[in-house]
Amino acid sequence: MDRVPAVSSAFASDNAAPAHPIALEAVVAANTGTTTSYGDDPITQRAADRVRDTFDSPNADVLFAFTGTGANIIALASAVRPFHEILCTDIAHSLLDEAGGPTLVSGASLVALPSDDGILDPAQLDRRITRRGDVHHSQPRIVTITQSTENGRVWQPDGIAAFIDHAHELDLLVHVDGSRIANAVAALDVPPALAVGDADIVTIGGTKNGMLFGDAILVRRPEHFADIEFVQKQIGHLASKHRYVSAQFDAMLSDGVWLQAAGHANAMAARLSVGITNLGLHLSSPTEANEVFVDLPAEALDSVREHFAVHAPDPHKPPVRFVCSWATTEADVEAALKALAQAKTV
Amino acid sequence: MDRVPAVSSAFASDNAAPAHPIALEAVVAANTGTTTSYGDDPITQRAADRVRDTFDSPNADVLFAFTGTGANIIALASAVRPFHEILCTDIAHSLLDEAGGPTLVSGASLVALPSDDGILDPAQLDRRITRRGDVHHSQPRIVTITQSTENGRVWQPDGIAAFIDHAHELDLLVHVDGSRIANAVAALDVPPALAVGDADIVTIGGTKNGMLFGDAILVRRPEHFADIEFVQKQIGHLASKHRYVSAQFDAMLSDGVWLQAAGHANAMAARLSVGITNLGLHLSSPTEANEVFVDLPAEALDSVREHFAVHAPDPHKPPVRFVCSWATTEADVEAALKALAQAKTV
Amino acid sequence: MDRVPAVSSAFASDNAAPAHPIALEAVVAANTGTTTSYGDDPITQRAADRVRDTFDSPNADVLFAFTGTGANIIALASAVRPFHEILCTDIAHSLLDEAGGPTLVSGASLVALPSDDGILDPAQLDRRITRRGDVHHSQPRIVTITQSTENGRVWQPDGIAAFIDHAHELDLLVHVDGSRIANAVAALDVPPALAVGDADIVTIGGTKNGMLFGDAILVRRPEHFADIEFVQKQIGHLASKHRYVSAQFDAMLSDGVWLQAAGHANAMAARLSVGITNLGLHLSSPTEANEVFVDLPAEALDSVREHFAVHAPDPHKPPVRFVCSWATTEADVEAALKALAQAKTV
Amino acid sequence: MDRVPAVSSAFASDNAAPAHPIALEAVVAANTGTTTSYGDDPITQRAADRVRDTFDSPNADVLFAFTGTGANIIALASAVRPFHEILCTDIAHSLLDEAGGPTLVSGASLVALPSDDGILDPAQLDRRITRRGDVHHSQPRIVTITQSTENGRVWQPDGIAAFIDHAHELDLLVHVDGSRIANAVAALDVPPALAVGDADIVTIGGTKNGMLFGDAILVRRPEHFADIEFVQKQIGHLASKHRYVSAQFDAMLSDGVWLQAAGHANAMAARLSVGITNLGLHLSSPTEANEVFVDLPAEALDSVREHFAVHAPDPHKPPVRFVCSWATTEADVEAALKALAQAKTV
Repeated sequence: MDRVPAVSSAFASDNAAPAHPIALEAVVAANTGTTTSYGDDPITQRAADRVRDTFDSPNADVLFAFTGTGANIIALASAVRPFHEILCTDIAHSLLDEAGGPTLVSGASLVALPSDDGILDPAQLDRRITRRGDVHHSQPRIVTITQSTENGRVWQPDGIAAFIDHAHELDLLVHVDGSRIANAVAALDVPPALAVGDADIVTIGGTKNGMLFGDAILVRRPEHFADIEFVQKQIGHLASKHRYVSAQFDAMLSDGVWLQAAGHANAMAARLSVGITNLGLHLSSPTEANEVFVDLPAEALDSVREHFAVHAPDPHKPPVRFVCSWATTEADVEAALKALAQAKTV
Repeated sequence: MDRVPAVSSAFASDNAAPAHPIALEAVVAANTGTTTSYGDDPITQRAADRVRDTFDSPNADVLFAFTGTGANIIALASAVRPFHEILCTDIAHSLLDEAGGPTLVSGASLVALPSDDGILDPAQLDRRITRRGDVHHSQPRIVTITQSTENGRVWQPDGIAAFIDHAHELDLLVHVDGSRIANAVAALDVPPALAVGDADIVTIGGTKNGMLFGDAILVRRPEHFADIEFVQKQIGHLASKHRYVSAQFDAMLSDGVWLQAAGHANAMAARLSVGITNLGLHLSSPTEANEVFVDLPAEALDSVREHFAVHAPDPHKPPVRFVCSWATTEADVEAALKALAQAKTV
Repeated sequence: MDRVPAVSSAFASDNAAPAHPIALEAVVAANTGTTTSYGDDPITQRAADRVRDTFDSPNADVLFAFTGTGANIIALASAVRPFHEILCTDIAHSLLDEAGGPTLVSGASLVALPSDDGILDPAQLDRRITRRGDVHHSQPRIVTITQSTENGRVWQPDGIAAFIDHAHELDLLVHVDGSRIANAVAALDVPPALAVGDADIVTIGGTKNGMLFGDAILVRRPEHFADIEFVQKQIGHLASKHRYVSAQFDAMLSDGVWLQAAGHANAMAARLSVGITNLGLHLSSPTEANEVFVDLPAEALDSVREHFAVHAPDPHKPPVRFVCSWATTEADVEAALKALAQAKTV
Repeated sequence: MDRVPAVSSAFASDNAAPAHPIALEAVVAANTGTTTSYGDDPITQRAADRVRDTFDSPNADVLFAFTGTGANIIALASAVRPFHEILCTDIAHSLLDEAGGPTLVSGASLVALPSDDGILDPAQLDRRITRRGDVHHSQPRIVTITQSTENGRVWQPDGIAAFIDHAHELDLLVHVDGSRIANAVAALDVPPALAVGDADIVTIGGTKNGMLFGDAILVRRPEHFADIEFVQKQIGHLASKHRYVSAQFDAMLSDGVWLQAAGHANAMAARLSVGITNLGLHLSSPTEANEVFVDLPAEALDSVREHFAVHAPDPHKPPVRFVCSWATTEADVEAALKALAQAKTV
């Protein structure tokens, strides 16, 4: 029996949560007999169909990876050559939290565009489309946006559609980092395809949604990502016992389990957000999915951290992040609000 | 219910097998409550201690990765810069079966040395140590060997000790690719540390041994792999819900489970090997661990493939590979021998 | 006989100029007999000493490269590993005009900091030094600044000294891109060492100063650039007939030739700048070295371009660049002012 | 006045020679007035036409680079992605003498095939074309051969034609490293196009032929090297004062100067070769161009080195290399033979 930590991880990240029972059961159920490895097995074929159906993309290719960082690298690196640029927002996970992995593997630079909590104005793209064809200057090739964003915002269907249309007009490919796509779809309550617009490639996060591990990659325009299976292999993300990743997607995408899990996380975040506002504290970003960002002075942060591990992304700025998951309980929320109420008075 | 394939995967690879019950139970047992992500959790700490104890390396660092390809890349890329060379054998998995991943991530070339089924004569190293310090020529920095080898051979303790000593005399680091280290240790019946000699870094395969997925990386001389945690992150192999990989290592390395699993696989391979010899067929490599290589003409191979998926590594050469796992049964072996007997008469 | 172009290149760039007679004579004079290649010849040894003496760096290593882009890549790539960041200004040549070369060769990203025409406030560094040691985030390792800047500004000795001291306090290395260092030294009229402060590595541009081609690399803290000679070779910048690059440095750095050439270019730029101001046109940046930036509406730009090829770096912004060189004449300046006067009335 | 070295560089390499007077005169003549930089000048246009005409390739693109290593990297890296393989011979300069540059810039591995002094049997290609499309295995994409080879051999027109045809049948591109193409053409006494067969891309060495520096790149099938100009820029090989490289090609390729220079070098090598044979020494490779390889025991090598710097490529093997250039004299040859005669008796 492991020692119970004095400090709760309940809000540290949605990947601090355990696996959802449905995901775990799917892994257990898949554990029968030998089968073809590397994805050429019936469970993986079925899971790929499930991903295609869910996102209304009958002609897309589907691959799986172990992590969101792995999936992002595979998607981005297969789209570019080293003289290309990958455009992203100023808070993109691929820019700030993947230790330079996309650049290492692709050779291409990421270029940060100013955003509103990760929501990008299409006009930002125009400013960067300069010197096309000039061999002295690297060339923008793909833009990556995140749904829901790293700051817990959700792109609206018409907003993301307009953004992607404009990117396509500028001859840019579009990647949607869907590390928390389930939270966005649950929040929007629209068909999943509307939450990602006409993106050329979408990475679909499983881990934060409740799986043990795993991301899917939906390649909707395979002609622009011709060598993607080689990149997947080259960074060691082609699972040999492949059924254990795909079975989880098959199960979670069935019967709306993924959206129930994400909807619960969103509801807990909403409850926490309202409670925080009622405490008179200031939200630094609107709460639209499963993340709550609150301005806390340093002393109050220290006080909160006696009870809860929380992420304060930028040491120069006050916002403190609380993330809810499928496993967050109302009791967790109440305990967090209590800790915040105490902290406020420090 | 998935359709039963007409062709058995029983001998296609040890990664065609399902997960060992002990590994799966460990995953299920780990699924309680929230915990710190990215490896800073009690289960991972315990698993790392278990790896250190098993290989008698109290001062080593331990990391985990999802796949053997990932683990190899992390180990090799953290040791070199792009003007270095990675020496390997002519049948190395890192050379032939990782799609150039180690070179992509490290920038360094792999240089193949002729070997005897993956067993390398120390004198081969001397031939490559030329032009030291010459800026026109890339510089050997690390040599990687595989235990047991890709052709199913096992390095003897004194042989691997002498090889590694000689490499160190030549100022080379040594990596042991232990994708099937369990099979080697079980075959040798010696303490695991003797099976890897004084290697500077060892990757320890879990998947082929019976896990759902996962490799451990034992960094015995961390001063030569200073940035290894960045490389792990940069290719997306730092698991967020880290306990699901480490719990498997904790369980399988306890009470000798890993060696029982590997020993069974070896025994099944020995049985198959004897049976093949009795059929009058020729083994292209001695059977020393869990892989059996047999010379089969093309027509006989086609006949076998009506019943069993098997790997024929090089289309220009006859050897056909049968791999046994923890899950291989005596009935599987008998069926394979029957198919081979029929094939022989084609 | 080549056709005389209708449009003058006199102000297109300082690399549109021919070679300075002293540089060309040095090449001709070096053309005697066989000698050791790859830099192990007496002329190169003498030139390296000359570079060391000029910048008062007796213990520095000196290498040569063919181009400024090559020299920048060699300096930066030898300082970093792929999880590092290279900090630069928002107008850095290495960021905007080297097609991603530094990133391709090093694997590390360039991160742009807002600047005042390339002059960087030390406080900008503090804002970027976050998450030190966090494996999820790439780590700043070196900052590159340009003297004189891409917008024709000159760092003052105390300003550059303070900046570099602060960078060192933050454990950052400092590279000075001296593509136009001669213009800065001539403008400041101080010993060259004061123009580059305590930079760890300096690239010294020859081409824009008047050579046929060539840059020197002054490695003042070789312990941080241990493998720089391999990087030089790996991108094909180790000249075999090495004397033809080094002889030019030997000659131009003798008797102040390099500063006379640069001083003339600066004087022509000052004359042009005053003339432009007298025309009532607006300089978008102060003229401090050999480049003049003037705001011109698009129609006026078209009119100027009937007579002079000029560079308008950003199609979204009006500034038009005029660069003077050792070869610019007063007649060229008068002609340019005449063209600008006409353009103004368009 | 530089100290005359006691040891002659006359046979150390063809790049120990000074520049041919015609090349130097062309540089001097080009030094008039300002002109467009980066290759968009009349001299460069004329030189490119001259290269196209010389190799009977009217539709080819022509680029220039500073060095042979640079040119090889540009040619190879623009043809591949990191999961590709570059096939080469076991003595290829790109494999052994470019410090891993082609791999660093391209991400792709070089794979050495056994050769006869650099002459490759087409059947060697067949052996490597395995596992096409297998994502676990890197994929051969281009083969590079050298004319004349690094060991001084010359591909015959029908031999190179057959080799390239076979490579094309195997869906491989072909690069000819023409670092010493002039020596091959002079030796064969055929139109240059016959010396390079139907190669897709040819790099044409200027330095060893007599220039101060410079290589041309003849891109005959631009569709397979679409981004080559970006790669050229990314490693700093796009010359700004471009006329100084192109003027040399324009001059040397006129009136057969390049072939006279190479023919003289070949003749001196033939004379040396005959002399060596007459001394009773053994040539380790036939002398077909401008390089002579002779077996010398270590003591004899030491004796020779008291008089001549010579290259002994592999410390494990006896061959010692003597290279002749446009500047080698009969007196040089006699002096070398005298030194060899003395050495033989050591």
